Amino acid sequence: MIQTDIIIIGAGPTGLFAVFEAGLLKLRCHIIDALPQPGGQLTELYPKKPIFDIPGYPSVGAGELIDNLMEQIKQFEPGFTLSEQATTIDKQEDGSFIVTTNRGTQIQGKAVAIAGGLGSFEPRKPVIDNIAYFEEKGVEYFVRDPEMFRDKKIVIAGGGDSALDWSIFLAEVAADVTLIHRRNEFRGALDSVDKVIELKKSGKINLITPAEIVGIKGEDKVEGLMIEKEGESFEIETDYFIPLFGLSPKLGPIANWGLEIEKNAIKVNNGLDYQTNIEGIYAIGDVNTYPGKLKLILCGFHEATLMCQSVYNRLNPGKKFVLKYTTVSGVDGFDGTRKEAEKAVVKAID
Amino acid sequence: MIQTDIIIIGAGPTGLFAVFEAGLLKLRCHIIDALPQPGGQLTELYPKKPIFDIPGYPSVGAGELIDNLMEQIKQFEPGFTLSEQATTIDKQEDGSFIVTTNRGTQIQGKAVAIAGGLGSFEPRKPVIDNIAYFEEKGVEYFVRDPEMFRDKKIVIAGGGDSALDWSIFLAEVAADVTLIHRRNEFRGALDSVDKVIELKKSGKINLITPAEIVGIKGEDKVEGLMIEKEGESFEIETDYFIPLFGLSPKLGPIANWGLEIEKNAIKVNNGLDYQTNIEGIYAIGDVNTYPGKLKLILCGFHEATLMCQSVYNRLNPGKKFVLKYTTVSGVDGFDGTRKEAEKAVVKAID
Repeated sequence: MIQTDIIIIGAGPTGLFAVFEAGLLKLRCHIIDALPQPGGQLTELYPKKPIFDIPGYPSVGAGELIDNLMEQIKQFEPGFTLSEQATTIDKQEDGSFIVTTNRGTQIQGKAVAIAGGLGSFEPRKPVIDNIAYFEEKGVEYFVRDPEMFRDKKIVIAGGGDSALDWSIFLAEVAADVTLIHRRNEFRGALDSVDKVIELKKSGKINLITPAEIVGIKGEDKVEGLMIEKEGESFEIETDYFIPLFGLSPKLGPIANWGLEIEKNAIKVNNGLDYQTNIEGIYAIGDVNTYPGKLKLILCGFHEATLMCQSVYNRLNPGKKFVLKYTTVSGVDGFDGTRKEAEKAVVKAID
Repeated sequence: MIQTDIIIIGAGPTGLFAVFEAGLLKLRCHIIDALPQPGGQLTELYPKKPIFDIPGYPSVGAGELIDNLMEQIKQFEPGFTLSEQATTIDKQEDGSFIVTTNRGTQIQGKAVAIAGGLGSFEPRKPVIDNIAYFEEKGVEYFVRDPEMFRDKKIVIAGGGDSALDWSIFLAEVAADVTLIHRRNEFRGALDSVDKVIELKKSGKINLITPAEIVGIKGEDKVEGLMIEKEGESFEIETDYFIPLFGLSPKLGPIANWGLEIEKNAIKVNNGLDYQTNIEGIYAIGDVNTYPGKLKLILCGFHEATLMCQSVYNRLNPGKKFVLKYTTVSGVDGFDGTRKEAEKAVVKAID
């Protein structure tokens, strides 16, 4: 079982920054996220979009902000369990917690910080009768490991950046890539659209538009898809079907952990430390609610910081905490690295 | 009288960022600060030092952070009254406030946000019997306007970066610059020390070390200084005496505004909006206190944001506030400029 000080559920900006503030207090963190990479919605939904309200950044790309946060926390060596969803939290007799994921991974920690944002991002699924049967049998809602598609026939459906970008990427990996969209127009970055046009011309991507997938064929696994295009119906063969229709947030398993929920968010004590109704479990960032709550990244940073202080005080009840400024004290990583301000030079003049 | 929506007292990072959040809500701000430039202690005390705990910045120079904040708020055209200290706040019958400075400037606003940091930075004064008599008669604790020293004789005292940097700068302006320090060693950036050595060699700076100034001579204004150096006493002529011995924070006039004070800070309601015991007056950043308070810049950013929302709600009681994300809605400045995310391209492929 993985052991840590703070189990953080959610690898968005709030969860990531909590690692830094915990590190300053010599507390280690392990982060769980259902998505295959850190960053939450910033990386998954709008990595190239600028954000204008991060203090000190007149403008910063969402993906760039996550890269910077990953760099900032690197020296505190956070653990990551990605592509797994936290499904249960069990409080132990000694006051610690064990979090278990949907794949059975278990992490034990002294406190839990839920930084789940808007919840889990569930893929939007196409309305096809038998699609549930084929999940994990050839239907994939995420591209977690491109290698699984090597030399296979794949069909991607969708009209946005994800569909375009994965079609481009997998054209070099799969034996055969078909992109299907219900319109002729795609909504995506101009260079992606141009690249798809080019790959279509060179025969590396088959494009079927405007068309819809209306059925899945196969015995134990996906073998083919039934397509409707301008009134005509036909079938194509494929090994995989990858519908990329975007993600929609769901609070998910969080709703079953015995926490006070209000307006699809977790109620916390904002007058002190953003703790929930269960001692030792905190909720920070967009996932929590309290009077005056604003779902802003900069508020999550503040909440993460006060949460870490509260955990420190719980774990060190007698100890008086003395706040040290990083500018004055420097920052010592768990990996032995040290960041510090250049010392003033004392030099004689004569 | 200057009219605004929110009067912000203190131009440190918290006060500056409040302008941005107010601007998103179409509220205008006017900032008052006793120092001659924005940035508070970051600019005045450690502009070149790195800060490691600003979220999203693995490291950022204090001066650079202030520059970035100034750039971020530019489009909301904040007003500035610098080099003046806010001395009184008077609540008007219509619920507005008038703030008056030590130089008689008056600003009227609908709300007041005190972002005073550790308070006013008072210069550390050398212990010389008659120094108070010569203040504003040739004794200057800040270099507010270098031009006042053009072609004059000046004496700078001190051993840190300020004393070194101003000696270097004013060597090109004043008729005669003397730098006096009680030790032979200076604590300052290496390149400043080297530059002073160079200017001493070329005769542009007179250096007297180790020495102390023990008296001031003059009738209506400074005419000379009495120096002690290694047991010997002598006098030198000068027009100005500029002691640069650093600054020490004092809560100052803030203590007399009828606000609840605890541990040299203003008590606020952290359960909602960081309002003080006087409705319409808020305290944000290092100047406030509440259970679990941490004097961190990132906390000031959060407090400033919730303060602005509260002011908006007070001024628009019936109106339902709808939070818009800058990534989605863009940012419209009062100067007509607009920042927005690039729109996705819709393009047909056939």
